[in-house]
Order: sequence, then structure tokens, then C-alpha cells
Amino acid sequence: MSFVYAVSLFTVLVAFAFAAYLFLWVRRQKEGNARIMEVSALIKAGANTFMRREYGILAVFACIVAALIVLFLPKPFWQGDFSQNLAMMVAYLAGTILSAIAGKIGILVATSANARTAEGARQGIKPAFLIGFRGGAVMGLAVVGFSLLGVSLVLMLLGDSSILLGFSFGASSLALFAKAGGGIFTKTADVSADLTGKVELGIPEDDPRNPAVIADNVGDKVGDGAGMGADLFDSNVAAMTAALVIAEGLGGAANTMMVFCYAALGLIASIIGIATARINQNGNPTRALNSSTYVTTGLFIVLTALATAIFQGFSWRVWGASTVGLLVGVIIGITTDYFTDDSKPIVRRVAHASHSGSAFTVLSGISYGFISVLPAMIGIAVSALVAYKLCAPMGDGYAMYGIAMAAVGMLSIVGMIISNDAYGPIVDNARGLAEMGNLGEETIRVADELDSAGNTVKAVTKGFAIGAAGLTVISLLGAYMSEANAALIAAGREIITGFDVMNPLVFFGILIGAAIPAVFSAMLMLGVDKNAQRMVEEIHRQFREIRGLKEGKEGVQPDYGRCIHIATSGALMELIPAGLVAILSTMVVGFIGGPLAIGGFLLGNIVSGLLLALFMSNAGGLWDNSKKYVEAGNEGGKGSEAHKAAVVGDTVGDPFKDTAGPSINTQITVVSLVASLMSAIFVAYSLFR
Amino acid sequence: MSFVYAVSLFTVLVAFAFAAYLFLWVRRQKEGNARIMEVSALIKAGANTFMRREYGILAVFACIVAALIVLFLPKPFWQGDFSQNLAMMVAYLAGTILSAIAGKIGILVATSANARTAEGARQGIKPAFLIGFRGGAVMGLAVVGFSLLGVSLVLMLLGDSSILLGFSFGASSLALFAKAGGGIFTKTADVSADLTGKVELGIPEDDPRNPAVIADNVGDKVGDGAGMGADLFDSNVAAMTAALVIAEGLGGAANTMMVFCYAALGLIASIIGIATARINQNGNPTRALNSSTYVTTGLFIVLTALATAIFQGFSWRVWGASTVGLLVGVIIGITTDYFTDDSKPIVRRVAHASHSGSAFTVLSGISYGFISVLPAMIGIAVSALVAYKLCAPMGDGYAMYGIAMAAVGMLSIVGMIISNDAYGPIVDNARGLAEMGNLGEETIRVADELDSAGNTVKAVTKGFAIGAAGLTVISLLGAYMSEANAALIAAGREIITGFDVMNPLVFFGILIGAAIPAVFSAMLMLGVDKNAQRMVEEIHRQFREIRGLKEGKEGVQPDYGRCIHIATSGALMELIPAGLVAILSTMVVGFIGGPLAIGGFLLGNIVSGLLLALFMSNAGGLWDNSKKYVEAGNEGGKGSEAHKAAVVGDTVGDPFKDTAGPSINTQITVVSLVASLMSAIFVAYSLFR
Repeated sequence: MSFVYAVSLFTVLVAFAFAAYLFLWVRRQKEGNARIMEVSALIKAGANTFMRREYGILAVFACIVAALIVLFLPKPFWQGDFSQNLAMMVAYLAGTILSAIAGKIGILVATSANARTAEGARQGIKPAFLIGFRGGAVMGLAVVGFSLLGVSLVLMLLGDSSILLGFSFGASSLALFAKAGGGIFTKTADVSADLTGKVELGIPEDDPRNPAVIADNVGDKVGDGAGMGADLFDSNVAAMTAALVIAEGLGGAANTMMVFCYAALGLIASIIGIATARINQNGNPTRALNSSTYVTTGLFIVLTALATAIFQGFSWRVWGASTVGLLVGVIIGITTDYFTDDSKPIVRRVAHASHSGSAFTVLSGISYGFISVLPAMIGIAVSALVAYKLCAPMGDGYAMYGIAMAAVGMLSIVGMIISNDAYGPIVDNARGLAEMGNLGEETIRVADELDSAGNTVKAVTKGFAIGAAGLTVISLLGAYMSEANAALIAAGREIITGFDVMNPLVFFGILIGAAIPAVFSAMLMLGVDKNAQRMVEEIHRQFREIRGLKEGKEGVQPDYGRCIHIATSGALMELIPAGLVAILSTMVVGFIGGPLAIGGFLLGNIVSGLLLALFMSNAGGLWDNSKKYVEAGNEGGKGSEAHKAAVVGDTVGDPFKDTAGPSINTQITVVSLVASLMSAIFVAYSLFR
Repeated sequence: MSFVYAVSLFTVLVAFAFAAYLFLWVRRQKEGNARIMEVSALIKAGANTFMRREYGILAVFACIVAALIVLFLPKPFWQGDFSQNLAMMVAYLAGTILSAIAGKIGILVATSANARTAEGARQGIKPAFLIGFRGGAVMGLAVVGFSLLGVSLVLMLLGDSSILLGFSFGASSLALFAKAGGGIFTKTADVSADLTGKVELGIPEDDPRNPAVIADNVGDKVGDGAGMGADLFDSNVAAMTAALVIAEGLGGAANTMMVFCYAALGLIASIIGIATARINQNGNPTRALNSSTYVTTGLFIVLTALATAIFQGFSWRVWGASTVGLLVGVIIGITTDYFTDDSKPIVRRVAHASHSGSAFTVLSGISYGFISVLPAMIGIAVSALVAYKLCAPMGDGYAMYGIAMAAVGMLSIVGMIISNDAYGPIVDNARGLAEMGNLGEETIRVADELDSAGNTVKAVTKGFAIGAAGLTVISLLGAYMSEANAALIAAGREIITGFDVMNPLVFFGILIGAAIPAVFSAMLMLGVDKNAQRMVEEIHRQFREIRGLKEGKEGVQPDYGRCIHIATSGALMELIPAGLVAILSTMVVGFIGGPLAIGGFLLGNIVSGLLLALFMSNAGGLWDNSKKYVEAGNEGGKGSEAHKAAVVGDTVGDPFKDTAGPSINTQITVVSLVASLMSAIFVAYSLFR
């Protein structure tokens, strides 16, 4: 095993070295003019304000959770033996801290890369693309590097895979704040800036007079950039954790080794994919992003095949499961693209429906959003079935190991996925900066092209992230069962062999679990609304009280910081009740129905969570691109009635795709981990058995 | 047993006699003026056109299905023994025919009662209420009478509860056409009439120049009236069937007797509730409708308690399960009311959100719609758990019997529920007739008040219908397991003891089953859109080609029939692919994964179906009432920007609540019955086991 850890840690070192090289490369590029640097500094300061405040609240939250862990997890304090509880607390804190560092690094490089990308766009698409992409890649490498580092260290130093659940829970806590909190923040800023600027005053997007404009630009970073990074950090750690918990249950070092080996090879494939990403002058940035994803995918499959051929105890069946997982992930990404790309018929149909008014934009978007769920659900179902059937002949328990390895396989290229995803907000910002810095028509056009590629790729990465989360939470269900059985054996009770839906406790859990993602996402969306109301009030106050602001008098600046402050506090305030509903309902179901009800609860949560997450993300992307399609001059173009209707669709879709939809992933993971961590307590104390 | 049948049939006779009395009473009331009679005759003719065409297509469909049944169900023809197959075919056809007759009677009385209600409204609220309510009651009594008659006769004459599945499938087939087809019809007509009339020409709702106006009025009848009746006929039959299949599995005449006894007592309670419904001059119609529901509920509980005390072999535990089911049904109705009644805060919040634009109306409606799912899901979960726990001590298999009896209990008052529900479209029509017949301000005000009560009660009955369907389909899952096990025993294979979600076949089924209601409802909504486009074209053609129509020249009439024809054909054309997707996906999953995958498929279907049905029905009701709240002069009143936004919400909500949401119930039942009927085939032929 120490060989495995050595290899993992060495790979992490290589990834960090490469990330450092890319970071320094980005920093060496030319920054923009004075105006750009000024705005860029404001964005950087705003992002730091958000992160500081977020991490501040998170620190308080993490300390409370850490205290609860010491008292209750994995065993309540009155049962003695604190050493496990202390180890779990350390693992938990490590999970939050490593994810936070990865997020911080990502934001740091992104706020450096945006101005340089804008400047690069003056030279053409090639240098601008490389700056944006490499900036994103630093985030990708940092996230995957830190997740592999953390998992290796926790297992090496604390030596128990169930302690890893604590580490994973730490990562999930952070993801909940970063993804859901960031999601509320970004949409609050976006909606308020649009409502007060575009609608009330008729000033353009990104107009520096608008007090919310910096918050809006910060939002792209913290919601899409850092949030997505934390989300995938969380999924990646959860997938590895689930696989390792199940591997430990099976015994045999090869099973554990395989998890690390696959994760390390995925990182190596991502490094090579990133290093070879290229674009020609006047090349197509979407194609460049996608082709590096395919390179990484192909490399991973070949490398793992080599490893399977070389190492003793590595099974071709497991390789098959992991390959199927990865391929299905890619397929889900492609089908997502079909529903959200404006060169495909669906987006155009929704744009066409806008002619009949906004109600039809909304109805057709919801309808196609519902339909878009099917291919991904089939993909996840088939990959789980194939992985299971492939690995079941290896022996008892191997089937669930196969599913876990399919999830690990799907997430293997996550470094590449995050790079592509983090590229988006960088070039989006660059576009805003090019406009604010008056870099001229041609530069804005280049930046626009880069931005549009970012949006297209974003849909694919979101589909991928949800698919990966789907497989991961299935294996977390397996991990939960292992944990619950350990507790049942310790209590001298019969173990659980499965969750039979005909059992009323399981069924009870399923129905309530299925309602939670709906309630959770609704609370986040209502949170955006409430928070936006607060922010609109603040913007009105500034326009009223700061003289000369509305008129754009020289030297008069709005108080950007105050808007950021309000959006941040509000976002976290709205997030906490939603998070508590999810966690408390898990506890209520557990205390009523015990471990069986929790199994049902997790299943219901997974099923309805996947359904809603896919629906909301895809419908949101669909509306966004329909609006852009109309704005490109189709169906009447900008200013037409169809355009107004398309804007309504986009406004509905924004919190769908950027706040609620992708946060459901994290909600499912959090709930699954709470269930696993508390399984011993539910075994001991429940109303029914 | 013959005593039980005698009692059931006698109760049915009483119900029919009472229905006939009410029908004659309605017919004795005064009809309206010439103009009203003319329009009323047009509506009646239109409804008949729709029904004739619907039943025509249904007859073809039913013959194809009947042929397939003879060939394949319950056993494929190459296994010999046709007698069972013939019995099932007869039962199937009986199911479609009895439901069709009940629907026809309902439409007949409703189209007679509407004009008389309008005329009655001239005398005040008391006579108008009684005419509307008694008209609805004829439908309620016919539906429940025919369902009890059918179930009794099938069991008496064909003597096998699994043949009842065929009868139930017949009822479901009809419900699919009536509810989903009617739902598409009604919204097609509504949307097209509004778009061309109110929006394009600026003429009022119900203006006789609009070619779609009769179709719109017919739509209320066929979608809300006959559709809801067929839906509850289906649920009622399915609940009794599931209980009887499970009772037969348990053995013991008392279990079977209890099902019939409860159903008969429910019918008696409904008759008394209907007979005692009263309102004072200037009384509150909503209160009158609700109080007769409470009378029926109380009576049923008392009557079943008496029966339990008197008859040997009747268990108090089962009585408890049934009572819990009924009470939870009422509670679900009340919580639905909380989310959709304009005197409660939620509707007002959504109305208030309309100030910020239609995107916010939509977002807040979706959010509260999601949240509204929780209490109903908890209610169903708790009633299933309590029923199970109450009855489990009675012996093996009794737990599922308890759940089935909770569903029977919940549906016991269905006669009363349908009466309330069928009241809605009658008074809605009466309101339109009062306007078209120029009956004056005061009459319209009275009709408005009656109509508003109908809308409020409709939300409650919809919640109730979905809750009842929820419990019913759980017991259908139990019935499916019985059937699958009979087939497995016959094949000499191991029986199924449950559906373990950790089994990959079950899990595979769950994920795909969960996606189906989303796809099904999306296809229906897109169907409305496509069909409305066809109809709008036809309306444009008529305005273009019929001279003097637009100007309202004396004696010039549009071609109402052609619009009805287009809406009908289109509705059925759009419905069939959606129905096929649901049925074929069941077959694909069954042939791939066998009986275990189908168990999972049904569970996924139930869970996501309940979630979406509750969400769509409640969100739709919420938007509808928000619009009405604004129109009543709040938040800026009619013509304000907030009103425009509220109208967008209502337009989105219309297909939600009248087409897709309530059709999902039927989709779940159809799929559950297809699964039960084909279980032997899936056992024999599947890729995996």
C-alpha cells in the first residue's frame, strides 16, 4: 500500500508543479489598460470580500459541526472511545480546508486571468483562448490534486476508510456553501443588476454606474467558478470514498489500490489533455475544448487498460465498469448538448415558441427540460446495471464495487472538466472587461466567441457533473449500507441485506426523501428572490443618495462593496434554512424509521434529486441559449416581442441552472453522508425498527 | 359471498334510483331564454361531437387491445387455455363500456343542468346552487354506482380477482382517453380562444363571434367533468381491484367481504351527504360543498365502525387503516387548499411577485408548487406506514391488505368528491351562459360566486384524487407482486419477496420509471401547443373567409363544429404517442430486466409521478387563483402590469393543472396494470433475471 500512496502523492506533486507553471505563465502575460486594471481590481476585491465572508461563516459552521462530530460521531460520547471521534473531526476539518484552499487558488488565478484574457483578445483568439484555458486549468489541477492528496493522507495517517466519510462530509459542507450560497449570490446580483439597470434606467449591462455591476461580475466567479470546483471536489472525494469504503469491506489490497491507481491515472490523463490543448489563429474554441476532453478520455481508457494488464489483481471486469462509467458520462454530456445548443432543433423550437408570448417560452422550455431527463436517466441506469453485472461474478459485494468504480471512472477526467468549466467565467469576465475598457469592436467579438464556447461547454460539464453525482450517490447508498451493518452487527442485531420497497419503513422513507430536493430547490429559488429584493432596495438607495451617480458624473462611484456585502450575507442567510431542512428531515426520518427508512429516504432523494437537477439545469441552459439565438437576429431579433418572451424564459432559467439545479447534487451528497455518519445513532435510537 | 353481492347490487340500485330522481328533478327546472337555449344546444352538440369521436377512436383502440388480450393475456396463446383470456377480454371491454356510460350520463346531465343553473341564478344563489350541485351529483352517483356494479358483476360471474385486473385496465384505458385527451382538448380550445379572441381581436371571453367559443365551453365539460369522473372511476376500481387481489391471496371470505362492504357503505354515506346538501339564500356555496363532504366523511367512519362491530371477521385494525386513509385524504385536500386559496398567504405572495414581472410570477409559483408537494407526500407516507403497522400483526400479507384498505377508505367518499367536482364545470358554463344570454349584472354576480366556489373546491378534489391514486398505486404494486409470484410459481422459479433497491435490476427500473411521468407530461403539454397552433389557423381561416363574422353581422355564425372537430382529432392524435411511450417503456424494461426491474419501474413511476402530479396541479391552481386575486382589484387590478404577469402565470398553469398534472395519475395506473397483466410474459421472456 505504501507504494500506492507514494505514487498518488507523486502524481499530486506533478499536478501541483504543472499548475504552478501554468499560473506563472498566466501572470507573465500582459495586463490590460488602466481602466481594465481598475475594474479587474474591483472584481478581485469583490470576490475576496465574498470568499472572506463565506469562509468566515463556514468556519463558524464547521466548528459547530466539528464539536458535534466529537460528541456524537461515529459513536456518541457516552459510549466512550473518543479517538475515532477525534480522527473524524480532523478528517472533517481537513475536507473543508482543502476544498477551500482549492477554491481560493481557483479564484486567485481566475481574477488574474480575466484582464489578461481581455488584453490577449486584442491579439486574436489564439492567445486569448490559451490564457483563459490555462487559467481554468490551474483550478482544475488544484481541485483534483487536493482531493487526491486529502484522500491519500486521511487514509495513510488515520488508516480507516470510514473516517474518510468525515473528510467527504467536510468537502460536502463546503460545497453546499460554495455552490448553493454562491448560486444564490450570483443570481441575486444578476437579477438586481438587470432589474435596476437594464429595465428601470435603460443603461447597458456592465455599465459602471450600476452599484451591482461588480457584484454581478463577482457572481460569475463565485457561483460558476469556485462553486462548480467545490461541487466536483465534493463528488470526486465522495466517489473515491464510497469506492474505498466498499473496497475495505471486500478486503484485499488490490481493490483499494485500484481506486488510487485509477484516480492518479485520471489526473495524469488530465494533465496531458491540458498540456496539449491548442487552438489555431481563428480556430473554433468549442472544438478545442471538446477535443482536449476527448484526448483525456481516450488516454484514461488506454492508461487504465495498461495498468490492468501490468498489475496483478487488477481485474478487466472492473476496468470495463470504469470505462462504461466514463463513456456514459461523455454520452450524457453530448445529449445535454443536444438539448441546449442553439445549432440544434430544440433551442430553435423554444425560440420559435416565444412568438406566441412568454407563457409559451416557459411551457415549451419546461416540456423539453422534462424530456431531456430521459437519456441521462437511461445512461445512469444502464451504466449502473452494466457495471453491476460485469463485476457481480467476482464475488459477493463486488457488484456494488463495480458501480463505485464506474463513478470513479466517470469522475476520472474531472480535472479536464473543471478546466473547461472554469474557463467559462474567465472569458465571460474578459468580455465584460473588454467592453468596460473600450478595447474596440474586434476585441469584443473575439471575447464574445470565447464566451459563447464557454456557455456551450458549460452545459456539457453540468450534465457530466450530475451524471457523475448520480453514480456516486448510488455507491454512497452502498457505503451507507456497509456503515449501517457495521453498527447493526455491533448492536447484535440482524444486518440489512437490502432496502425492499415493499417494506413500509423503506417506502415511508422513499416518499419523504423524494420530496426533499423539490423543497430544497424551491427554498433556494425563493431565497434568490428575497435576496434580490434587499439588493434592489440598496441600489435604489445609492442612486437616490449618491449625487451625480445616475448622471454618470466624472469621479462619482457607487459603493460596490456594500452591494457585495448584502448579496453575500443574504445568500448565506437564505442557504442555511434550506440546508437545515435537508439535514433535519434526514434526522427525523432516521429517528422515526431507523436504518431501513433512511435507506429508502436516500433512494427517494437520489431519484427525485437526479430528475429535478437534470430538468432544471437543462431547461435553464435551453432558455439561456434560446434568448441568445433570438438576440443573434433570429425570430425577430433583439427588441422584438419574441425577444421579450425569450428574456422571461432566461430569467426563469437563471436560478434553475445556476442556483437550484446544480445545488441539488450537493444536497444529495450531504444527506447521504449525514445518513452514513449517523447510522450507528439511528440503529440505536429509532421509533420503529 | 352471495349475500355480499346482493347487498352491493342493492346499494347500486338505490344509488341509481336516487340519481334518476335527481336527474328528473334537474330536468323539471325552468330552462333559460331563447339565446341561452341556443348556446346551450350548441354546447351539448359540441360535447356530443367530442364524445362520439373520442368513443369512436376508443372503440378501435379497445378492439385492438381486446385482440391482444385474447392472444397474450394472462397467458400467451401458445400455452393453450383460452378461457381465461376470453374472460379477461370480456372484463376489459366491460371496464371501458361501464366507464364510458357513466361519463356519457354525466355529460348528459351536465349539459342539461348548465342552462337551468343560469336561469336559477336569476332567482338567487339557493336554487342555482341546488341545480348545479344535483347535476354534479348525478355524475358522482353514476360513476360510483357503475364501478361497484362492474366489480361485483365481474367477480360474481367470472369468479377470479385477477380477471378484475382486466376490468380495471379497461377503466384505465378509458380514463387515459377521457382525462389526458380531454385535458389536451380543453386547453387547446382555451388557449386558442384566448389568443385569437382576447389578444388579437380584443373581444371578450365567451364572445359568440369566436369560432372557438363553443369548443372552449365544451372543454370544461369533457376535461374537468367527464375526465375527472373517468379518472376517479379508474382510481376507485383500481383500489377495489388491488384490495380484492390481495384479499384473495390471503384467503378468507371476510377479507373480500370487507372490501365490498366498505365500498357499499361509502356509496350510502355519499347518498346521504348529497341528499342533505343545502344552502341558505345568500349562503356560502364553498362552505355548503365542504360541509357535505365532512358529513359524508363522518358518516362513513361511523357506518364502517358499526359494520365492524356487527359482522364477524371484520377487524378493527382494518377499520383503523381505512379511517386513517380517509382522514389523510381530507388533510391532503386541506393543505392543497392552503396553497391555492386566495384568502391564504401563498396565493397573495405569488400575486405580489407579479409586480416584478412575469418571470417572478413563474418562479414563485414553481417554488411554492414544489414546496406544496411535501405535506401530501408526508400524508401518503404516514398513512401507508400506519396502515401497514396496524395490519401487519394480523398475519403475513395483511400489511399490504391494510394499505389497500386505506386506499379503499380514502376513495370511499368518491361519490361526494365527484359531485363536488362535476358541479364546477356546470356552474362555470352557467356563468358563460348568463353572460351570453344577457341575464344581467346580478345574475352574473351570483353565477360568479358559484363558479368561484367550484374553483376552490376543485383544488381540494384534485389533491384528494392524487392522494387516493398514491395509495392505490402502492396497493397495485402489492397486486403486481402477487401476480408476478403466481407466474413465478407456475414457472417453477423462486418467488419475489420484495424489490430491493440495491438489486441492480430494481434500481435500473427505478431510474427509468422515474423519468416516464416527466416525459409523458411534457408530451401532453407540447401536444396542447401543437394542437392549439392547428386550431388558431382554423380560426384565422374562418375570420378570413366567413364574411361579416368579424364585424358581428346579424345572422352570421362561425363554424363551431369544425373547431371542435379539429380540437378533438388533434387531442387524440397527441395523446396516443404519449400513452405509447408509457406502455412501451414498461414493456422494454420488462423484457430487459424481468419482474424485478418492473417492480422498480413501478416504484420509480409512482414516486416521480406523485411528485410531478402534485406539483403541477398545485402550481396551476395557485397561478389561476393569483390571477383571479389580481383581477379582483388587488396589486394593481385588471389591466395593470402585475395583471399581465399574472396572466402569464395562469397560461403556464393551465396545461399544468388541467392537462398534464391530473393525467399523470392515470398514466401510473395504466402502467401498473400493464405490468400486472404482463407479469407472466415478463417472467417467461426477459434478457436478465
